[in-house]
Amino acid sequence: MAGSTFGRYFRVTTWGESHGVSIGCIIDGCPAGLPLGEEDIQPMLDRRKPGQSQFTTQRPESDTVRILSGVFEGKTTGAPIAMEIANLSQRSADYSQIAEVFRPGHADFTFQQKYGIRDYRGGGRSSGRETAARVAAGAVAVKLLAHFGIRVFAYSERIAGVSVNPEHFSREERDRNKLYMPDKAAAIKAAEAIAAARAEKDSVGGIIGCLIDGLSAGLGEPVFDKFDAKLAQAVLSIGAVKGFEIGEGFHAADLRGSEDNDGFFCENGAVRKTSDHSGGTLGGMSDGGQVYFRAAVKPTPSIAKEQQTVTTDGRNVTISVHGRHDPVIVPRAVVVVEAMAALTTADLLLAGATSRLSALDTVYGK
Amino acid sequence: MAGSTFGRYFRVTTWGESHGVSIGCIIDGCPAGLPLGEEDIQPMLDRRKPGQSQFTTQRPESDTVRILSGVFEGKTTGAPIAMEIANLSQRSADYSQIAEVFRPGHADFTFQQKYGIRDYRGGGRSSGRETAARVAAGAVAVKLLAHFGIRVFAYSERIAGVSVNPEHFSREERDRNKLYMPDKAAAIKAAEAIAAARAEKDSVGGIIGCLIDGLSAGLGEPVFDKFDAKLAQAVLSIGAVKGFEIGEGFHAADLRGSEDNDGFFCENGAVRKTSDHSGGTLGGMSDGGQVYFRAAVKPTPSIAKEQQTVTTDGRNVTISVHGRHDPVIVPRAVVVVEAMAALTTADLLLAGATSRLSALDTVYGK
Amino acid sequence: MAGSTFGRYFRVTTWGESHGVSIGCIIDGCPAGLPLGEEDIQPMLDRRKPGQSQFTTQRPESDTVRILSGVFEGKTTGAPIAMEIANLSQRSADYSQIAEVFRPGHADFTFQQKYGIRDYRGGGRSSGRETAARVAAGAVAVKLLAHFGIRVFAYSERIAGVSVNPEHFSREERDRNKLYMPDKAAAIKAAEAIAAARAEKDSVGGIIGCLIDGLSAGLGEPVFDKFDAKLAQAVLSIGAVKGFEIGEGFHAADLRGSEDNDGFFCENGAVRKTSDHSGGTLGGMSDGGQVYFRAAVKPTPSIAKEQQTVTTDGRNVTISVHGRHDPVIVPRAVVVVEAMAALTTADLLLAGATSRLSALDTVYGK
Amino acid sequence: MAGSTFGRYFRVTTWGESHGVSIGCIIDGCPAGLPLGEEDIQPMLDRRKPGQSQFTTQRPESDTVRILSGVFEGKTTGAPIAMEIANLSQRSADYSQIAEVFRPGHADFTFQQKYGIRDYRGGGRSSGRETAARVAAGAVAVKLLAHFGIRVFAYSERIAGVSVNPEHFSREERDRNKLYMPDKAAAIKAAEAIAAARAEKDSVGGIIGCLIDGLSAGLGEPVFDKFDAKLAQAVLSIGAVKGFEIGEGFHAADLRGSEDNDGFFCENGAVRKTSDHSGGTLGGMSDGGQVYFRAAVKPTPSIAKEQQTVTTDGRNVTISVHGRHDPVIVPRAVVVVEAMAALTTADLLLAGATSRLSALDTVYGK
Repeated sequence: MAGSTFGRYFRVTTWGESHGVSIGCIIDGCPAGLPLGEEDIQPMLDRRKPGQSQFTTQRPESDTVRILSGVFEGKTTGAPIAMEIANLSQRSADYSQIAEVFRPGHADFTFQQKYGIRDYRGGGRSSGRETAARVAAGAVAVKLLAHFGIRVFAYSERIAGVSVNPEHFSREERDRNKLYMPDKAAAIKAAEAIAAARAEKDSVGGIIGCLIDGLSAGLGEPVFDKFDAKLAQAVLSIGAVKGFEIGEGFHAADLRGSEDNDGFFCENGAVRKTSDHSGGTLGGMSDGGQVYFRAAVKPTPSIAKEQQTVTTDGRNVTISVHGRHDPVIVPRAVVVVEAMAALTTADLLLAGATSRLSALDTVYGK
Repeated sequence: MAGSTFGRYFRVTTWGESHGVSIGCIIDGCPAGLPLGEEDIQPMLDRRKPGQSQFTTQRPESDTVRILSGVFEGKTTGAPIAMEIANLSQRSADYSQIAEVFRPGHADFTFQQKYGIRDYRGGGRSSGRETAARVAAGAVAVKLLAHFGIRVFAYSERIAGVSVNPEHFSREERDRNKLYMPDKAAAIKAAEAIAAARAEKDSVGGIIGCLIDGLSAGLGEPVFDKFDAKLAQAVLSIGAVKGFEIGEGFHAADLRGSEDNDGFFCENGAVRKTSDHSGGTLGGMSDGGQVYFRAAVKPTPSIAKEQQTVTTDGRNVTISVHGRHDPVIVPRAVVVVEAMAALTTADLLLAGATSRLSALDTVYGK
Repeated sequence: MAGSTFGRYFRVTTWGESHGVSIGCIIDGCPAGLPLGEEDIQPMLDRRKPGQSQFTTQRPESDTVRILSGVFEGKTTGAPIAMEIANLSQRSADYSQIAEVFRPGHADFTFQQKYGIRDYRGGGRSSGRETAARVAAGAVAVKLLAHFGIRVFAYSERIAGVSVNPEHFSREERDRNKLYMPDKAAAIKAAEAIAAARAEKDSVGGIIGCLIDGLSAGLGEPVFDKFDAKLAQAVLSIGAVKGFEIGEGFHAADLRGSEDNDGFFCENGAVRKTSDHSGGTLGGMSDGGQVYFRAAVKPTPSIAKEQQTVTTDGRNVTISVHGRHDPVIVPRAVVVVEAMAALTTADLLLAGATSRLSALDTVYGK
Repeated sequence: MAGSTFGRYFRVTTWGESHGVSIGCIIDGCPAGLPLGEEDIQPMLDRRKPGQSQFTTQRPESDTVRILSGVFEGKTTGAPIAMEIANLSQRSADYSQIAEVFRPGHADFTFQQKYGIRDYRGGGRSSGRETAARVAAGAVAVKLLAHFGIRVFAYSERIAGVSVNPEHFSREERDRNKLYMPDKAAAIKAAEAIAAARAEKDSVGGIIGCLIDGLSAGLGEPVFDKFDAKLAQAVLSIGAVKGFEIGEGFHAADLRGSEDNDGFFCENGAVRKTSDHSGGTLGGMSDGGQVYFRAAVKPTPSIAKEQQTVTTDGRNVTISVHGRHDPVIVPRAVVVVEAMAALTTADLLLAGATSRLSALDTVYGK
């Protein structure tokens, strides 16, 4: 498992299992001089904290982050920033069921096949809990991006078939309801649909939208490390995500070139686009407009409904997964998408610093 | 631009611009002992060659690959495999228009913004021609995968709003029509739709499907280098791709857990799935089933229709892009998707070799 | 500072400053199934623990390691192994002097120049304390290598001008004296030389030798990641090391080819060497013999003797560095060299697993 | 063999075997806007060209470099720079001897053991010829560094036991004699010693010194990617190099702290050192002074003298290696050391661009 690092310049490496001692991360490559404290991290972590509403896991975790290194007198020093979140909840007893049965829709089976051993407590490394470490790292990226006027904003765009009405879109509203939907009416309807699914021992999925504002043109590295390609990896690396699209996305497949292309025009010396079908990138680089992408999130695989499965020793059985499970992953994943988008953007921001000789000139005072 | 390398174990680095001396690639990390010759590469390259039908660029390129290193007496030696494809067509005159105008839907503007300089001839580094180097590399990956019984099969699933009928799906048919559609009737209808768009000086998009067969369970590295996440990066790194989804993809957003989960059952000692909504991965690792993903391809941005744009010195103008352009990118991109999927799979196949101590034991004869 | 990761397959990332909350590391890529517990790590850490003798820092640290993740029921799971060592000693008051003066021979000045900020407490990130994290990681590598019959053995070869007599070389003796010299008589003489230097408020340096046994031929990647090249990086990355040589090393510069070449002969079907001037590598790969390299360690830069230096605000002053400082770094660095050599070897062991198609065949049961 | 890439920001990947079609390299990550042409590369390549004197291989190679990509209208574009050098000499017949016998001191045996196959023609991938690709890449790094006032200067410091007299050191003289010794008298004596060794069918070794001037303080990444650590890897990755030392190097082992430390003083607002025992780095970062390191080069392993060895099928035989071989590698390796030092420095120069937030501010115009 050499896949625990993301980014090449702003590099994040995470550790931790659901029911181990702790989870955490190291950020290597964060520039020195960024004001940073735990108070910058905690609020973002709190947004994914379980037990906040009837729609999220009732696990009693404080998810308190500790910065272990890399910050001195309130500023980053350039040294790796390690952050740790203790696992308070280690009631392994709850999870004895998982030890011997492969849960449908989970990674129990594939972990066992790959490694021949698996930490079955709470899903171990494949638990959604691992994303807390990403969010902690993401909060640092968010702070760095904010310094450059870049803001990442993710939200629940659709849950259980209920979509946000673009005309009612409100950034403020996102933070007022527990579903992180930027549309109050939609949030109410979606909550009803979630409740209905839960009543039937079932779960629902949805779509997360994400906007990145304040980008200048040229972010992203051509060919394999395109901005959209790295965003896609970042977002698909979140357990429940099954799809990614940018701008018109799959809809572009049915458009004509004349409909999909964004024209350019010049206004007060600045080049602008006549529309934004591209979603803010061209040739894998930011085009100066707002980046807009969407992630499809599958329904929570842990459901109380009976499902067909097998035991680790090959017996056919049925399982109904009980315990503290969200009937929908979307709301808690919103901040994870935001974190991953921020990490991707921060990494490419650093990567872009050496694109031009003239930029290096300014760095080295030439 | 440090984004020209893909893969960590089976590493591909490409070079080249549309109208430079040549394009090519180096593969570092291919195991020694694989039978390989130019005859393994050329057929796959020929599938993306322009000028093959009325729907593809009329540029007269032979796209002949030369292996420069890494192969000795018909086998790979473990040394880097360099491959080169000469650029026969270097008529820069054709492209003088691009030098001074940013084409809508192209990377002209973003390259200029990022680097302050751009090789405008034929799109330079952002030209679709760069993908020939990927296909050459992909052909080596295909050969390696075939040795392990793994096969990647991509195809045009939808073009100009015309979809393949799953009931008529035929692998053989894919290679019989110029649109690489595995359904003859659909191909005929799609061809008509393309012709209609072209007649209106316009272009169309579509969707590419891709199947990977023969995978054992456990391929893919947890957390950031999940199989689906790396596939997503790989596919989105292709210029015109705007979306990626695996299994139910965006459709999963509207399913319930009980509909989306695949149950398990045991048959003759093997664990199988009762359905395949996941698309062949669980927790970012292959689950032993067929991998199925889809890529959304935007319509060709180069259209003869008049579009609004600006010159490099900021004048508002209109442009109608003439020259040798495909009215649809999908057919030629099919083999590129196949190449990128093969490269991703090969990389993770190598990565997986050290997952278990017992695997290392067999390697080192313990 | 993106240099906190070592290795590409067996990847170690360290965090921590001398007087921060804790130091630690993550190992990503350790194969699953390796028996591992804190009892495997602690003994190696204890070997570099300060306060063990009159020659080492009197800092009262227990250096107790905690495994935070990646181990389940006594075995590695393939997930990242995080390990943490708390910093008990955080008496910043001791180090107020460093805050305003650049110590000669230390990294105070260069850190300040690079980052514009520095955690001056105890040297911060550049403190020798950082090496405890490497030793913890190295202990895991040592365990992995032991599984394959590979053993790394480092020792003090020369201290304060006193060299080990090769005829008296004894592995057991190394662990009996506090200088880690495999020659009792030399250790006694070296101790006297150290005491003499200390009496004069001065310090001494020396040379560390390192042997790696049990390697089969072929370890190391040609060209840039040669075994000896990676060992050189590994060893030079230890703060006080100023030189690296393998086999005859600098002495080879004065030999003739006929003296330096090792002949081959065949004995009972095995190829052996008639001598070992190469130090166990040929063309950057292990040649089946014992690897032997040496590292030059400079004298401790912290000395009580008065030295000329400047303050952070540019005043010329003198400094005599007091506090808990070893008069010689060599003994404590022995286990660090061992750790770095083990990490290098483990990384290349994993890298080598995919060198041949036939090796992959065994992994994937073909 | 995944070791063909060097650098993380200014990344060089090489390809090619001694007697394959060609050798070459790709540089990914070179900033856009650097004036560059083949005329910048060729002179440096010419310095390592064989057949220039009685002391170097008589192989008739023109070693003409072609830039294949990444340069447009005389400037780098930010795209990967591919460079190719054709192999004119492909007389495989010459090397039939190697096919069946392992040459002492060469990598024939280890390549065979690692890969089970080897391109034996002229040593294949392990041939010194591979370094031509490094030199081509190094020339680009040299050009980039020159822009920032940084100069790398390597030279033969000692050959066959004859050392340069520091008092006669002359940069101009280095380029006047074929041994690249910056001391005419020493060059004459060394030439005699080489001739004597050759007359006895033998070869000699030596030491290469290297100076890097014009560095500001702070270059190099702490911990594993220290400037000196990466230089050590770079230099040891050259086939015949057996040792690396910086500043006092191995001599520091015998110094006292008060002798080895360099004091600081302030002069006209600038911090300077009272001496330079460190060799220009502190804590793995450039300290603002001249970097000085040395590399030990073993005697040419190919000698006409009879040596004991084995055949690939295990017979004990003797071999005397005939053909076009240098009796000393040092002179031709001088430019290779220069290239590797330049590549290392360029990589760390780019790495350092994002060390501080204030540097990023200048890049992004904040």
